[in-house]
Amino acid sequence: MNAQADKVIGIVGGMGPQAGLTLFNRVLCHTGAATDQQHLPVILMSFPGRIADRTAFLEARAGSNPAFAIARIIGSLENAGAQVVGMACNTAHAPPIYDVITAELEKAGSRVKLLHMPRETCRYIGENHPHVRRVGLMATNGTYKAEVYADLLRAGGYEAVIPGYAFQDAVIHRMIYDPHFGVKANPGAVARQVRQLADQALAYFHERGAHAVILGCTELAMVFPERRAGRMLLVDTTETLARALIREATCPCPGPVPHPA
Amino acid sequence: MNAQADKVIGIVGGMGPQAGLTLFNRVLCHTGAATDQQHLPVILMSFPGRIADRTAFLEARAGSNPAFAIARIIGSLENAGAQVVGMACNTAHAPPIYDVITAELEKAGSRVKLLHMPRETCRYIGENHPHVRRVGLMATNGTYKAEVYADLLRAGGYEAVIPGYAFQDAVIHRMIYDPHFGVKANPGAVARQVRQLADQALAYFHERGAHAVILGCTELAMVFPERRAGRMLLVDTTETLARALIREATCPCPGPVPHPA
Repeated sequence: MNAQADKVIGIVGGMGPQAGLTLFNRVLCHTGAATDQQHLPVILMSFPGRIADRTAFLEARAGSNPAFAIARIIGSLENAGAQVVGMACNTAHAPPIYDVITAELEKAGSRVKLLHMPRETCRYIGENHPHVRRVGLMATNGTYKAEVYADLLRAGGYEAVIPGYAFQDAVIHRMIYDPHFGVKANPGAVARQVRQLADQALAYFHERGAHAVILGCTELAMVFPERRAGRMLLVDTTETLARALIREATCPCPGPVPHPA
Repeated sequence: MNAQADKVIGIVGGMGPQAGLTLFNRVLCHTGAATDQQHLPVILMSFPGRIADRTAFLEARAGSNPAFAIARIIGSLENAGAQVVGMACNTAHAPPIYDVITAELEKAGSRVKLLHMPRETCRYIGENHPHVRRVGLMATNGTYKAEVYADLLRAGGYEAVIPGYAFQDAVIHRMIYDPHFGVKANPGAVARQVRQLADQALAYFHERGAHAVILGCTELAMVFPERRAGRMLLVDTTETLARALIREATCPCPGPVPHPA
């Protein structure tokens, strides 16, 4: 890494706070650095109280769109010097949120390069696992209904293995959002009930011949820390976004000119 | 936590990058929050390439004082909204660095409340472990020679157990800085040689009747993840700073008025 030429990475955290930290940690782990000083410059802004729950907004289409708060945070990151930005939340990439964020940034004359986690994930699979053709998805109901991954996978020539809504809601979404045992309610631990649902989900994709399963919610990396389940590849979207942030930050191409601080 | 009233926490990271992340993580772990939205607002700025090694500066008294870069980063944190700031590095609190930081902040008209990790650590011991009278110190040569902790401990009425320089350099400093097996050269792992030096260090303080040992370098929490070694309390300075940041951020007292973004 060349500290002089590297661009400043900005991370929108707080969705939840642990996901932002994990993304930062993945950037650190994947950076080839021999001393402290060779590590990449990173700004992480975690304002969990300002960003409403993404899935709740998508489900109800009521309340304030979290896009406005997210766009303001990206503006603050840019003011502080960030040139390449990633959001540590898959659901924030659903078009009803993501498209409003990009429109707000354009309106404000933003020059940051905002990476797109689901697009980077599909790109990662294509570049690193060319044998993969049939791809399953585990995500929140928000990401599921917005069809972010399903559309990208089909456009990329993949066969998307997407469960029916009953299974999605009762098994996959529940691992994340169950108010008692779900991952969001128990940060730092994985409950026995979540393990059982996780096994059900893996069996579902295995029976349908998936070559890979996208962990399309940042919280799911806690449930599935492994890279593989049997012959299926498990794709951690926090990791694919971290790799993309490093790629863009260290790219010798001229980046967006940083705003004066 | 009351998201409306909480002050924004700023963290100066990058010294090394992992220490900044760990401090943020400790803030998360010690915050009593039932939902994502109840977590405290935190901005972490990690610019490792801009901040020269603190101990190298203190030892040589040559090269640029890292205080100037640190003060500029605190200024950026303040511009982004931070009101209470912590630096994830004990050595940056040595007076030749710390006093220049506070002078620079004063010159710039800064209104942030900058917490002092070693002072907060002594305060933590006094408030939570009143039986402790004899306190040992493990730190970098930079912190050791600046006598930051020794002075604070004596002023607080403690008996400071400070090894002679030969032991400090060959055993304690070496755990952190040995170019081959030291913690800074092997992030994420603790080498066998470090474990041996750690045992020697603990035996030293144990033989001298220390009631507590301050892990006065953020990297040492990796070597000593336990809270106790035999009857000795091990005090993690990242943890004491995290608790102090939460206390100040959630304190109902009026804080510094945030700068307009």
